Amino acid sequence: MRDFLPADLRRREYVIRVIKDVYERYGFEPLETPAVENIETLMGKYGEEGNQLIFKILKRGEHEKTGEADLALRYDLTVPLARVVAEYGERLPKFFKRYQIQPVWRADRPARGRYREFYQCDVDCIGTRSPVVEAEICAAASDVLRTLGFDNFTIRLNHRQVLAGVLEAAGVAADKQGDALVAIDKLDKIGREGVAREFDARGLDADAGGRLLDFFETLPELEHAAELIADETLDIKGGTRAEAYNHAALGRLVEFVSGHDAGALGIENLRAIVEYADAYGVADKIKIDPSIARGLSYYTGAIMEISVPDLAGSLGGGGRYDNLVGMFSGKEITACGFSLGLDRIVLVMTERGMFPEKVGRASADVLVTVWNEESVKDSLAFAAELRKSAPALRVGVYPEADKLGKQLKYASALGVPFVVVIGDDERARGEVALKDMKTGEQRTLKREQAGAELSEALNGAAK
Amino acid sequence: MRDFLPADLRRREYVIRVIKDVYERYGFEPLETPAVENIETLMGKYGEEGNQLIFKILKRGEHEKTGEADLALRYDLTVPLARVVAEYGERLPKFFKRYQIQPVWRADRPARGRYREFYQCDVDCIGTRSPVVEAEICAAASDVLRTLGFDNFTIRLNHRQVLAGVLEAAGVAADKQGDALVAIDKLDKIGREGVAREFDARGLDADAGGRLLDFFETLPELEHAAELIADETLDIKGGTRAEAYNHAALGRLVEFVSGHDAGALGIENLRAIVEYADAYGVADKIKIDPSIARGLSYYTGAIMEISVPDLAGSLGGGGRYDNLVGMFSGKEITACGFSLGLDRIVLVMTERGMFPEKVGRASADVLVTVWNEESVKDSLAFAAELRKSAPALRVGVYPEADKLGKQLKYASALGVPFVVVIGDDERARGEVALKDMKTGEQRTLKREQAGAELSEALNGAAK
Repeated sequence: MRDFLPADLRRREYVIRVIKDVYERYGFEPLETPAVENIETLMGKYGEEGNQLIFKILKRGEHEKTGEADLALRYDLTVPLARVVAEYGERLPKFFKRYQIQPVWRADRPARGRYREFYQCDVDCIGTRSPVVEAEICAAASDVLRTLGFDNFTIRLNHRQVLAGVLEAAGVAADKQGDALVAIDKLDKIGREGVAREFDARGLDADAGGRLLDFFETLPELEHAAELIADETLDIKGGTRAEAYNHAALGRLVEFVSGHDAGALGIENLRAIVEYADAYGVADKIKIDPSIARGLSYYTGAIMEISVPDLAGSLGGGGRYDNLVGMFSGKEITACGFSLGLDRIVLVMTERGMFPEKVGRASADVLVTVWNEESVKDSLAFAAELRKSAPALRVGVYPEADKLGKQLKYASALGVPFVVVIGDDERARGEVALKDMKTGEQRTLKREQAGAELSEALNGAAK
Repeated sequence: MRDFLPADLRRREYVIRVIKDVYERYGFEPLETPAVENIETLMGKYGEEGNQLIFKILKRGEHEKTGEADLALRYDLTVPLARVVAEYGERLPKFFKRYQIQPVWRADRPARGRYREFYQCDVDCIGTRSPVVEAEICAAASDVLRTLGFDNFTIRLNHRQVLAGVLEAAGVAADKQGDALVAIDKLDKIGREGVAREFDARGLDADAGGRLLDFFETLPELEHAAELIADETLDIKGGTRAEAYNHAALGRLVEFVSGHDAGALGIENLRAIVEYADAYGVADKIKIDPSIARGLSYYTGAIMEISVPDLAGSLGGGGRYDNLVGMFSGKEITACGFSLGLDRIVLVMTERGMFPEKVGRASADVLVTVWNEESVKDSLAFAAELRKSAPALRVGVYPEADKLGKQLKYASALGVPFVVVIGDDERARGEVALKDMKTGEQRTLKREQAGAELSEALNGAAK
């Protein structure tokens, strides 16, 4: 588990702020649940492996010695949502659009980029099957990433029923479908022959495997075709290559899955999502990708995943899961959600230098130094003036009447960009000396103009 | 433990936002530590009672059956701070000014206003004995409360050494000083005779008790005197009654404690804090109050507590504690901190209706309805236009092509103030109908003006 020291935390908080602001603009509401749930609420919800990864809390008092646990740490944000929906029922809106950004805990073996305490950023809409929700969730996630400075990302979109249709149409036996998807997932890496070998090892029928490979191998070809089609034949308003590709991919799916009813409905659902996403202006970010499966077994409809070029793994994912939220209420409650990978987003943005300059700036924008014991009060008064005249300014004060050199060294170690010195002369003249720690330049300002000048200098530095 | 549904959470987040913004402006930096610490880090740090109130986490895997615990939930934010200071040592700034706003867990018996999971909002400055820190902490806490709309609050200020001096000067035996303070604390409620009886019951020397009562009873008299003094004799620039009172109280303390060295130093320290607070412009909020003791035994210097008229208990408190933060590093590390009572602040603000109107507003500022199946895309496109033209607007879309009456009922249940309807006629004319849900009034707007008009209407409503 990690401590977040100020510099790390500022970056995380910046990303969280953007996520919250965007979700709010789409009418999602915040929810927080306790870190601790009753142990029965969590046990049995995450499979046998999950049960073992749950942190369990000892009973208190005299029962402590029994070794019994009655509470457990939150393992994800979905089960608590289901509990909240069951517990508050009618008091929640008919369509409950909530986002939740809180830590969860899993007793996984720690590894690079995997922590026992990590934040999940979930957004879900409960209570409707409308594909408007899928489109809205894709649009909101796009808005988040664009605001953070990502532009070259893709929301890969698939559908559980379509996937089932494809596997069935290829003739993959029901009990081999999971195996088939695991192998197909490696097509990029190990090629057709590698996948065929893996099909064989997993006991898949060779003909079915061949048909599946044929289908997935034709998809990249569609990409090239789409480029040509976009210009020539499609009557899409401002049609882009992405839209042409989606159109072609849906057509290809219809051909392949034609006999499978649920699959055909799934394709219609995908078509509606793409259309609504188009209305929301994000269709060019969406790409139908029949190869994504997403591990969790609880998805029942559309599934999506956000990928960025040159980055293995995704920045987030989600989908429709209509049978899960009702687990505590005994009703069928439809739901569709999306989870952004906060840790990955922060990591990628840090590595690529995507944070605005001000997010990385030290604890203070300016440090007011203290000339001597007698002038402490004046330095404090000046700091108060600065905070008042420029409320966005972060103003530190050196707390002791140390030698000036020591104070400057402290400012420099902290990375504070500007330092104010008020010597006896400056004080007498109602002035302050402002030192730019980067250039070493020093200039004298009228005391009452310092707030405005500093704000300007900092905004200049931010550009 | 509590779920925070959207309306509650918005209020809490508003308060937290203000606290963070103000602390940042004073140059404090954010810190977050994991919810879970090693059990040895926490055990023995909070006394025998504390040990029992710590939530302990079972070892995982095969060790689960042993009933042994190796981890525990964070019990406060001070011990984790001490661990961080020991762990990161030289990598932290020389003066480490951090704030931390995170939940803590205590297995207390739940009661009204007492929860097993609750947030602490701590601000601390590590690494200097300068009374500038105490003044700065008082100024920052004042700024927070003023920004939240509190004006009639008092920061009561005392000093552990002064308190010891007063007790010693009165002749209270060392082993009876704790008892004496508990009894004196009730002076307001049970009067002189009641306190004297309690002194007797606790085995306090009657003469010493009498001297103590004499001292504490003279303090309220100083208040009246201060009012007169303020106008006549004090040479304070813009001197207020509060400053005059503090001046008088410090004088009274000097008289009473004169023989006690540490006490005299404590008085000088209080005098410096009041002077620096004056430079920071918050001296009128500070009141020397020799009767406050604050329970925690770890305070070593100044102690403070914020009270509001007509409210039992405090909104926050803190003080200097120079021997605690070094517990894991084996060095003496000086520290002074303050903790705001988030739950109490939210409670009082809710009861007194102090939240800005916008904080209480529903999930969305406007709900875009859907005329029929064919116009879903147009409603989505209009919602996207609104979000783009007025980024501060929270825009919901009704996700299904329900009857309009149902959509309006949903908006009304949510408390959304405005609803947009785009019928076929409006759509053809590039217009939208905007319905004010409070007045029932409806007007027609040009589509591209809707963002600006809505923002204006909402800002008007907020006034």
